[in-house]
Amino acid sequence: MKIGFIGTGIMGTGMIKNLLAAGYQVDVYNRTKDHAQAAINNGAQWQDNVASLTRSVDVIISIVGFPADVEEVYLGKDGVLANAHEGQTIIDMTTSSPMLAEKIYSAANKIGVAALDAPVSGGDVGAKSGTLTIMVGGKQSAFEQQLPIFKAMGSAVTYFGGTGEGQHAKMANQIMVAGTMTGMIESLVYADKAGLNLDAVIKMIGGGAAQNWSMDNYGPRILQGDLQPGFMAKHFLKDLRIVLSVADEMKISLPGTAVAKKLYEKMVSIDDWGELGTQGLIKLWTEK
Amino acid sequence: MKIGFIGTGIMGTGMIKNLLAAGYQVDVYNRTKDHAQAAINNGAQWQDNVASLTRSVDVIISIVGFPADVEEVYLGKDGVLANAHEGQTIIDMTTSSPMLAEKIYSAANKIGVAALDAPVSGGDVGAKSGTLTIMVGGKQSAFEQQLPIFKAMGSAVTYFGGTGEGQHAKMANQIMVAGTMTGMIESLVYADKAGLNLDAVIKMIGGGAAQNWSMDNYGPRILQGDLQPGFMAKHFLKDLRIVLSVADEMKISLPGTAVAKKLYEKMVSIDDWGELGTQGLIKLWTEK
Repeated sequence: MKIGFIGTGIMGTGMIKNLLAAGYQVDVYNRTKDHAQAAINNGAQWQDNVASLTRSVDVIISIVGFPADVEEVYLGKDGVLANAHEGQTIIDMTTSSPMLAEKIYSAANKIGVAALDAPVSGGDVGAKSGTLTIMVGGKQSAFEQQLPIFKAMGSAVTYFGGTGEGQHAKMANQIMVAGTMTGMIESLVYADKAGLNLDAVIKMIGGGAAQNWSMDNYGPRILQGDLQPGFMAKHFLKDLRIVLSVADEMKISLPGTAVAKKLYEKMVSIDDWGELGTQGLIKLWTEK
Repeated sequence: MKIGFIGTGIMGTGMIKNLLAAGYQVDVYNRTKDHAQAAINNGAQWQDNVASLTRSVDVIISIVGFPADVEEVYLGKDGVLANAHEGQTIIDMTTSSPMLAEKIYSAANKIGVAALDAPVSGGDVGAKSGTLTIMVGGKQSAFEQQLPIFKAMGSAVTYFGGTGEGQHAKMANQIMVAGTMTGMIESLVYADKAGLNLDAVIKMIGGGAAQNWSMDNYGPRILQGDLQPGFMAKHFLKDLRIVLSVADEMKISLPGTAVAKKLYEKMVSIDDWGELGTQGLIKLWTEK
C-alpha cells in the first residue's frame, strides 16, 4: 500500500513520520519543496507535482492550508481527480468546508474514486506523537478500509457519518474552542485589571465548573509571555469563517462564535499577529 | 464560637449542615422562615430577625440572592452593622459586587468589625459535600482567623488579597463559565443541525483541546432533556450583570461575556426559564 501525501507543513510532517513508522511507503508533494525536507529525511519519496504523485499511489492524503488550496489540489486542472484512476481513495484532512467535501466526493464518485473527509485536532504535538483526534465523514466501507492508516496517525478516530460529517464535527469542535478561548482571554484580562494573582486564578478555575483545556494549557503559557503557536491564529480564523458561513447556510445564529471571529479578524489584521498562537488574542487588550 | 448564618437557600442549607457537623453552634435567619426548616432540623437555632441574630453571635455569614439583598442585610436600618459590636467578623459569601464589598468593609471597619468577601463556586453539590471552592478577599489576618470555618465548608480555599478580591476572583470565574456555556450550547446546536451523533460529538470534544467541564457535565444532561438547575440561569445572569458593570468601571471591554449576558437576558425574560439551569440556554434555539 503506497500513500501519496500532499502538504508537508508542521502537521503533515508529523503525520508522515508516523505513517512511515507504521510501515507505509509514502510519496510526498508540497508547494514549497524546502518544507518537505524533513519528511524526505524521514524516508518519504519526493514527487515533482500532484499529477505524478497521484499516478504513483493507492491512497492520497492531503492537509493543506485553506479550502481554496483543497479545491485546487483535488479539482484543479492538474489536480488529483484529473489524474486519478478507479479504485483509489482520497482523504482530505484539512479543516475545510463540508460543502467542498461534498463537491469533491461527488466528482470522485463519478470516476470510481472513494473520498473521505477527515479533519483532525490535537495540533503539532498530536501529529508528532500519533495521538490526533480524527473526525471522519464519507462512506462507511471506505472508512473501514482505511482505518489502519487513520490509526497510524491518531489515537481517537471517530466515524461521524456521510460525506462532510467529519468537517461538521470539526466545526462543532472549533465552536467549542471559540468559547473557551474568548472566555479564557477575557477572564485573564479582567483578573489582571482587578489586580488578582493570575497563577492563583488559573489554579482556582482549573479546579471547578469553569475548568477547561484552554485555560489549563494556555493560561500558564500566557503568564510566561509564550504566545508561540500550538495552533496559529490565522488558521483558527479560517476555521471560524467556515463555521459561520456554514451556519449561515443552515440558518442558525451563533452569536458567541461570531464575536470570536471578529476578535480573531482584528488580531490577524495587525502586523504578523496572525502567525502567533490562538492564545495571542490577549494582545488585543495588552498592546492595543 | 457561635456563627450566625443569613440565607438558608439551597447553598446555605448545605453549608450550615457542614458547619454544624464541624461542631459550630449556628443561629440562622432567612426572609422566608419555611426555607430554614431543613437547617433547623439539622440542629441550627432560629432567630426572628437580623438584629437579634447579629447580637447573639461572634461571626456572621451571609449567602443571599442579589447585591441589593446583601446591601439590606448589612447596611439596612435594622441590618447587621446597625447591631454589630466590636470584635465581630462578617463574611458575605453571596456572589456580589466588589464595590459593595468595599462599601461594607469600610462601614464595618469604622465600628471595629472585620469584613471578608468570600463567594463560592461548586453549586449545591459542593455546598452539601463541603467541597466548595471559596475565594476570599479582605484583611489577611481576618482570613487566617476564620480559615477553620472556611475549611468546614470548602475543599479549595484561596485568599486572593484585599477587600473585593474574592468577588473579583469569582467574576473572573464567571467570565470563563460564560465562554464554556455559550461555546457548548452553540456547538451542540450546530452539531444537531448538521445531523451529527451528539453523544459522539460530546465524547470527541471531551478528548481534545476543546475539553471543558461544562460540556463534560451538562452535555449529557442536555441530551437527556435535563435542564434542571445545578445553577439557576437567573442567578448566572445576575453574576454577568455584575461582571459587565464592574468591567465598565474598569474600562475594559469583554465582548464575549457581553454576548453571553444578552443571551441569558433573553432566556430569563421568557416564561419561567430563569428558574432552569444555565444549560437551559439551549431552549433559545430549540424552542424559539
